Formats: sequence, C-alpha cells, structure tokens
Amino acid sequence: MAHVNEHYRNLAAGYLFPEIGRRVRVFQQAHPDAKLIRLGIGDVVLPLVPAVIQALHAAVDEMGSAAGFRGYAPDPGYDFLLEAIRTHDYRPRGVEIAADEIFVSDGSKQDSGNIQEIFGADCKIAVSDPVYPVYVDTNVMAGRAGRADETGRHAGILYLPATEANGFAPDPPAERADVVYLCSPNNPTGSVLDRSRLERWVAWALANDAVLIFDAAYDAYVGDPALPRSIYEVDGARRCAIEMRSFSKRAGFTGLRCAYTVVPKECTGATASGERVPLRDLWARRMSTKFNGVPYVVQRAAEAVLLPEGRKQADEQVAFYRENARRLASGLGAAGFRVFGGVHAPYLWVRTAGGLSSWDFFDGLLREAQVVCTPGAGFGPAGEGYFRLSAFNSRENVEEALARIVRAFGGAAR
Amino acid sequence: MAHVNEHYRNLAAGYLFPEIGRRVRVFQQAHPDAKLIRLGIGDVVLPLVPAVIQALHAAVDEMGSAAGFRGYAPDPGYDFLLEAIRTHDYRPRGVEIAADEIFVSDGSKQDSGNIQEIFGADCKIAVSDPVYPVYVDTNVMAGRAGRADETGRHAGILYLPATEANGFAPDPPAERADVVYLCSPNNPTGSVLDRSRLERWVAWALANDAVLIFDAAYDAYVGDPALPRSIYEVDGARRCAIEMRSFSKRAGFTGLRCAYTVVPKECTGATASGERVPLRDLWARRMSTKFNGVPYVVQRAAEAVLLPEGRKQADEQVAFYRENARRLASGLGAAGFRVFGGVHAPYLWVRTAGGLSSWDFFDGLLREAQVVCTPGAGFGPAGEGYFRLSAFNSRENVEEALARIVRAFGGAAR
Repeated sequence: MAHVNEHYRNLAAGYLFPEIGRRVRVFQQAHPDAKLIRLGIGDVVLPLVPAVIQALHAAVDEMGSAAGFRGYAPDPGYDFLLEAIRTHDYRPRGVEIAADEIFVSDGSKQDSGNIQEIFGADCKIAVSDPVYPVYVDTNVMAGRAGRADETGRHAGILYLPATEANGFAPDPPAERADVVYLCSPNNPTGSVLDRSRLERWVAWALANDAVLIFDAAYDAYVGDPALPRSIYEVDGARRCAIEMRSFSKRAGFTGLRCAYTVVPKECTGATASGERVPLRDLWARRMSTKFNGVPYVVQRAAEAVLLPEGRKQADEQVAFYRENARRLASGLGAAGFRVFGGVHAPYLWVRTAGGLSSWDFFDGLLREAQVVCTPGAGFGPAGEGYFRLSAFNSRENVEEALARIVRAFGGAAR
Repeated sequence: MAHVNEHYRNLAAGYLFPEIGRRVRVFQQAHPDAKLIRLGIGDVVLPLVPAVIQALHAAVDEMGSAAGFRGYAPDPGYDFLLEAIRTHDYRPRGVEIAADEIFVSDGSKQDSGNIQEIFGADCKIAVSDPVYPVYVDTNVMAGRAGRADETGRHAGILYLPATEANGFAPDPPAERADVVYLCSPNNPTGSVLDRSRLERWVAWALANDAVLIFDAAYDAYVGDPALPRSIYEVDGARRCAIEMRSFSKRAGFTGLRCAYTVVPKECTGATASGERVPLRDLWARRMSTKFNGVPYVVQRAAEAVLLPEGRKQADEQVAFYRENARRLASGLGAAGFRVFGGVHAPYLWVRTAGGLSSWDFFDGLLREAQVVCTPGAGFGPAGEGYFRLSAFNSRENVEEALARIVRAFGGAAR
C-alpha cells in the first residue's frame, strides 16, 4: 500500500499566495467591472530591460545555430555567469567567493525551500515570525515541524517574534537552534539587518555551531552603502552562513527565473558521531542529482544584468520601485497609518486600520478599495494586525491605490 | 549543532555523469589533441528547430514590452501550454487529461527525483536494474534505501533485474512494492513496454494498491503506432499511475528545460489510518511551495513543439537520431557485438567486447577509440558487462565512432 507523506497534513490550509489568488478570483467573478490594483504578491510589472532583451535574442540565435547550440548546462552554472557574479556582486564589496562555491538555480524560492534537505531530521529550525512561508512549509513537509497549534505555530519550530519593539529584527535566541533563516531586506516586514546585528548573528552561530541561511533576495533595494549587502561582509560568516540571491526583484526576472546560492567551503555541519562535513559538497550532490541547470538563454540574460549597461538599466527599475515605496509610506503615514519598511526594501509593513484582523482588512481593502494586499497573519501569528504592501506596480497604480486606501480607511487609521 | 542529512553517506561515490565527466577531463588533459566523440551522456546536438526559435524571439519581444511582459507564471503552467498538451499529446491517443492534472516543470529529472517526496518514508520502492540513477539516489537521500551492499544495491530498495532473458522488461514482483518506477522507452536499455506488459503492470498496481511512476521522457522515439506512448492508454492506469514527459529529447530542450508530469485525480495513496488522499493534491502543494514556474519564453517554445509546424520539424530531428541509432545497431551487430535497444529509443545497450567489465570497457573505449560511452554498471549491478551508447550526435560523428569502435574492439566482440 502506497502511504502518503503525512507531514503534508501538518501544513496550513494552503500556501498563502494561492489562497489570496482564490479570494481575488471570487471577488472578480462577483465584480467583473472592478478595476483591481494588485499590491499583494510581490510580482514586478516593468518589462525586462533592453540589455537583457538583447542578450536573450542573441542567446536564442545561438541556440538556433549548429555552432552555437548548447545542451545541458554545467550543473552549477556556466563559467561566464559564475565569473560575473564573483566580479560584480562580491568583489566590489570586498568579498572573495570561489566559482565552485556558487550554484546557479531557477529561484531563491526553490533554493530556500530545498536547502533544508541537506540537514538532519533532528535539526532545530528557527525563523522569525512573521516569516516568508516557504521556510516553514518546506520544513513541515520534511517532518521537522510537527503539528501547528491554534495560532498556526508548529511545535518543532522556534519562532523569533519580529515586532515593533525590536524593530522587526529579532536577536539570536537563548534557546537551541541549529539552522536559522534570516531574510534581509526582510520579506514581509521590509526591515534590514545592519552590520552590528549581522555580526551578532554570526558570533552566535559560530558559538552555537549553527548555520545561518541568509536570504538576500532583495539586496538590490538596500539604498545605504554602509549597510551590508552580503553576510560575507562580516568576518566569520564563511564558516557558518549560506547566502541566496535572486535576479527576480533586481531585474524583473520573476517570469524568467534565475537566482544563486553561495555555500562557502568552510561552512560545515556535523554527523552524529561528530565528523565535520562541508555543506557545499552536500548541496553540490543535491544539485547534480535533482537539478539540471538553468536555461542557457536565461544565464546569458542574468549575465547581462551584472554587466555595466544592464546593471545601470536594472538599477533604474529598482530606483523606480523604491520611489513607489517611498510615496506609499509617506502617503499612508500622513493618513495616520503606522508604516514600517519600504526604505531599503520593496515591501511596506503596515498596521491595519481600526484594529481589524489581517484577513478582515484584506477582505475590506479588496471590497472597499479594490486593492489587493497581503494579510500579515499569512506570514505567521505575529503578523496579525498588519498587512504587507508591495511597491511593484506602475506609478499611476501606486498613486491610485494610495488614494483609494486613504479614502476607504484613512479615517479609521487615525 | 547543525547535523547533516547522513542519508547522503549512503549514496554511491558520485552521480554517474559527473564521474564520467571527470574521467573524460583527465583523459583530455593527458591527450589534448584527441578528437573525442561523445556518445555517453544523452545530450542532443542539433540546434533548436526554426519554429521554436521563432516562438522564443516572439516571447522575448513580449517580455521587453510593457503590454506583453509576464511575471510569475501560474504554478502548474500557462493555460496555452496545458491545452496544447491535452490536445496534441493525449487526445490523438484517445486519452482525456484535465488541465489541472498537468504540472509543467523544468525537467523530468527533477520531477522523477522530487515525486518521492509525496510518499511516506515507509514506502517500499521498486526499480529495474539497470536503472536511471536519479530514481534510486533521490530515495537514498530521503532515507528509504539504507546502505548499499558491495554490489551497489541498497537494502531498502527492491531491484527487478532487466536481463536478456526477460527482454530487459521485468515483470511485476511477487514481493511487496508500493511505488514502482517504470521507464519506457527505457533508459538505459532502450527496451520498450508493449501494451500487454503495461496492462500487466497496471493490473498488478491496482491489485496491490501500488503507484507506478511512468517516465516516458523518450516517448517520441516510439516508432510503432501500435505501441502505447502513454500509460493512460491502458484501462485503469488513471487510478494508479503518474506519468512524466519531457521536451528534452523530443525537441532538443536539454539546454532550454521543459517537461511535465500528469497526476490523475483518481490516483490516490493512503494514510496510516487508511484514508485515501489524492496524490494530485499533494503534488500541487509541493509545486506551489517549492517551485515557481517555467519561464514564459520556454513555455512558448514548448507550445511551438506541439503545434503542427514545430512538431513536424522536431519529428525530423527525432527521425535523424533514430537513423543514427539504426546505423550504430546495425554496424555493431555486424561486427559481432550483442546489441539491444536502439529501435524505439535513442539508446543502445551493448555487451562489452571480450567480457570486459563496464568501467574497464569505458576506459578502453576512451583510450583506444576516443569514444565516450556510459558504463552499464553505472546504472546498477545488472548493467555490469554492458555499455550504453547514445544516438545523439551528428551523422558524421556516429559513423566515425562506429568505425573506431569496430576497429578497436570488433575482433574481441566476436
């Protein structure tokens, strides 16, 4: 008899974004003429920049010619992309990463979901609350989390509340944790870990033989050059941290799919008998067994983002979205909302108006303003009473959404 | 302390193809002038067909325009591709598949490696021997397989020997098995399951409450219209079979990445308490949590393969590779080799000359003929004494490789 993986039964009802999609579809069917503005799921709207389009066309032509055709890509990525990452993403920050420590993939969602596979079933996982659901759900599926209580927290996971009191940046825990997911700039709260906080995490990880999974998918939104973009800017991080970066929000690749993960050779885990095992070797084995490379044309597109012309064009898109975030934060703040994030991040984390619950506010915002947000409670119980707004939209839609939100809820927010 | 997943220690030394790559690199460094011909890893060589190139360029242009840009793809795939699959891959064979039973992915390697996640840890896995290593290795990583004995077989896996005596198509086992991987046309042996054999497998699965994972990545190479291309051509398969298909070998997508998996709604597994759970729902949850869709441009390329013009062009490439296989089989057979497969499959499965072991023959062929094959033992102990040749190369290289193999080993093969 084929038994199913019953750990799936411990998952929350549905992955957050499909559930939002379902509610939006129901609303649209009932109100076919409503002009929805989507500031929910963090999906970019600006077209791919000209340098990327040019690189894609050129690579497509290669794939159509006998001389230029490429079959299977090298598992970890093409040399040209690995070198571009080393040269343009790390060296300018004073960080040296070896080519064989970089693994190109089709997304940070996948990497941050798959990374738990290389750890033992007995590892204690810690996450912030609220948190990007993929970190939790993939550990639930793997059996590390157990059942959820009535607040949605799983018994086997250590939650670190990210609150207004700690600036949405919890400190390392006093309790045991073996693998900790850190996301900075943070999804969903838009907070960012400064150097001293990162140093504290690295010191804690080294002292406790823990591994940090540093998800820097939104690093392009860091506006202050004094803030670290990579955890490897902190001494000691090579011995305890795995880092993930993505082209999705930095260059509009959500529909093109490219990201990468760095696993330094000094970063190890232990066997039960205490032997040290390089995590890089485990990840390499996973990738060569369960992955088959990112399309050549996409890797050429990613390379174009790193080269000067493409970088300049992509940076302009990031600046555009950051200006959206600034306007949303400023307008909502002026209307009485309590607003966080939105400075070094494309996300704003906002208190619901009138003390509404997250999902009630979500439904109300959809009904009254035809604006889609993401309910904070969808990211964990500590997200209750907040909602997330994404800055990924046209200027016109952002201004219009802002006006509608203020019109519908500005009074209640005060 | 972060423990590692020690199941990885039960894996064979390296995934087969990286190990072949390593040996080839060592040889090339020692013999930089050698003109290698690669018939090892099954990677296509012909460029993408014009209809695919055209679709890619058109989709790239869309991605560069404000009106045409697409962000995140729908998790299971775009409707246009799901409909094309239903209309062109299934309906002509008399099979009706619902759109929400199809999951578009970036490869059958990934799908066949990930599918085990939805099953319980206690499921007994059965595979043929020799076998595509991904089926075994991913179950080893998940802890279902245990240690390997000196022959490389894992204690927790049931191996069904595929031998000359059974035409490289083992029958259902007498022992218990809950999840069985079937690959037809077969990698590595090139054998194909006819209707009566498929009927026997489906009847057995239904009688034993087992699930069949039917990997049809090479279905385009089936030349006889009487042979099933889909397991769903057999009555009852919808209740017990998951099917995987790929664009890799059918249209040269190894460097572009697109495949799909079908999970019919009637196909269920059981909880420990006996409740039936649709496997489709588990797979949908896995995909929405750990995957983020195939690039839009690639899905348009895949659609082009299914439409009449692209299909005609892709079919010509398949016919070209099949003619390569025919020539290899015919030439090696005439030289005294015992040759199997290569008719409805791009792979030939050949006895080594002179009773050599697979790896000795691999090394000898590299040294004496500068031809790269895949050693049969790399696919399992029952592959010992065989080697696999791939038909994916130019006509010129195939003819030249054939001549070299016959020159170097033709005498010993008799």
